[in-house]
Amino acid sequence: MVQYSPQLDSAFSALADPTRRGILERLGRSDAPISELAEDFEMTLTGVKKHVQVLEAAGLVTTEKVGRVRNCRLGTRRLDHEAAWIAAHRRMLEARLNRLGEFLERTRGNK
Amino acid sequence: MVQYSPQLDSAFSALADPTRRGILERLGRSDAPISELAEDFEMTLTGVKKHVQVLEAAGLVTTEKVGRVRNCRLGTRRLDHEAAWIAAHRRMLEARLNRLGEFLERTRGNK
Repeated sequence: MVQYSPQLDSAFSALADPTRRGILERLGRSDAPISELAEDFEMTLTGVKKHVQVLEAAGLVTTEKVGRVRNCRLGTRRLDHEAAWIAAHRRMLEARLNRLGEFLERTRGNK
Repeated sequence: MVQYSPQLDSAFSALADPTRRGILERLGRSDAPISELAEDFEMTLTGVKKHVQVLEAAGLVTTEKVGRVRNCRLGTRRLDHEAAWIAAHRRMLEARLNRLGEFLERTRGNK
């Protein structure tokens, strides 16, 4: 019954950290080298690199080495699958609430 | 620059596991005791309990002990905040692509 989806796993896992979400928001404004991200987020280069690797593995960031500098930019992954999963969950919740409402209506009607 | 949001952290983290997503989908059809979830997902009671605890901490599931049985049902959390974060990310990606398109247009115009 478990539907494996490495895509959903990697995206939700990448988004579960506030620094990683912050890096995505930062890169939404403009591309940036690792060193600039480290400065912006007051982290060590090693710390930022780890976060960027997780984002890169999830397809949310791409990096390119230019000379000694590793430039980061937003990946093209639009998170469609993730948005669809959440939308389906919301529809499921609403359906459940509707069923509960109908049940309460019927219970009242029987009194 | 990091915007802390324990809500986003806990929800995305809870959704990063296929068994936990499966449990939510299962509970969307009907409430179920832990023992039934263990059977459906071919897991030990302890394994399922851990997943349910993560989902409960994230507000995605509520549980209630009735006699010796712990019943699980979907929590009321609609994941609005998470859906909004993903929607904002998609708008950001589109804006970036538009800027890139305009840049390419200008570059062509100069030739």
